[in-house]
Amino acid sequence: MYKLYDFLPSGNGYKVRLLLNQLEIPFELIELNILKGETRTSEFLAKNPNGKIPLLEIASNIFISESNAILFYLAQETKYFPQDKYEQARVMQWLFFEQFSHEPNIATPRYWISVLQQPEKYREQIKQKQKLGYAALKIMEQHLKTSDFFVANKYTIADIGLYAYTHVAEAGGFDLSDFSAINCWFKRVQSQPRHILITDSELGK
Amino acid sequence: MYKLYDFLPSGNGYKVRLLLNQLEIPFELIELNILKGETRTSEFLAKNPNGKIPLLEIASNIFISESNAILFYLAQETKYFPQDKYEQARVMQWLFFEQFSHEPNIATPRYWISVLQQPEKYREQIKQKQKLGYAALKIMEQHLKTSDFFVANKYTIADIGLYAYTHVAEAGGFDLSDFSAINCWFKRVQSQPRHILITDSELGK
Repeated sequence: MYKLYDFLPSGNGYKVRLLLNQLEIPFELIELNILKGETRTSEFLAKNPNGKIPLLEIASNIFISESNAILFYLAQETKYFPQDKYEQARVMQWLFFEQFSHEPNIATPRYWISVLQQPEKYREQIKQKQKLGYAALKIMEQHLKTSDFFVANKYTIADIGLYAYTHVAEAGGFDLSDFSAINCWFKRVQSQPRHILITDSELGK
Repeated sequence: MYKLYDFLPSGNGYKVRLLLNQLEIPFELIELNILKGETRTSEFLAKNPNGKIPLLEIASNIFISESNAILFYLAQETKYFPQDKYEQARVMQWLFFEQFSHEPNIATPRYWISVLQQPEKYREQIKQKQKLGYAALKIMEQHLKTSDFFVANKYTIADIGLYAYTHVAEAGGFDLSDFSAINCWFKRVQSQPRHILITDSELGK
């Protein structure tokens, strides 16, 4: 059985949990608290030298890290990844957009504000990140004005990858009320079979 | 014929130029100067709403952006991308590592120091980036101590993706002299058939 090393408030972890659930793949969840340094122990660094969750162990001592690489691994030959080569590249394009232009700017303010609960300490950095984060949201909004989903008008791992941190962006101080296409897309994502919520344990609940 | 929109000092652009050359795929190069805002015109934003190069036009008005998604598109079913599903995921893992943990910390100081030539203006940010950049280099060094290449002991797009900004990291103030495994890997990458250098036009030459 797969083992998933994860920290429940993580949007990156949520991507993998959501897809595993939608694929009905059972897995053992091994919770690590990144706030307590549990991903920086020598034991964990031997599994993932980059010291990050999520980490998927697909067989004894066989690991895949990087949330979007895990999505790619799990989704191949399922309906969550297109068969057409160009559409596959477009999925990867949006997933790289997510990791480069979106996640660092949208997930990080949420981490500072809602996970660490130190908005004052990071006030200046939050301002800079939000500017870049809104730019990423505008690109998504523009795309979703004419498309139900990110690629080939079908729900794929591109949507899972982008949904994870976008739908909790308000916890990072973003105001999504003017992003009507994104809000409609949220509903389409949430109505997919076997959708699950980012865990209730997030945000310190 | 493919059209590649590119800015020659860009390591992200170099990845694509290198692979196209190794695959012997002819292409038309359309140079844009990002320092003059040529990727922020309404004409270019209609092609890539994220306003970034490299951008590959594979047919009239059919585009792929994000350098590593372009590598994925071009390399499929060639010797530069493995056939095994787990190895494919490991390639993507290293490419996501490159875009999240490596490129923002290693390419950006080079941009500030050697492209913009404003090291003083960015002194504090360079210091922070270098700390994270060295952490990424250490992960690469550790991996290359026991492997000739990043995945499956073969030269793949994971190597191309990581080589692009690593081999010019010194232009961002990084000292690579202690990274002996990385230096040996440079030689293995450079000895691949049809290797090309990052263009002479870089760094203002």
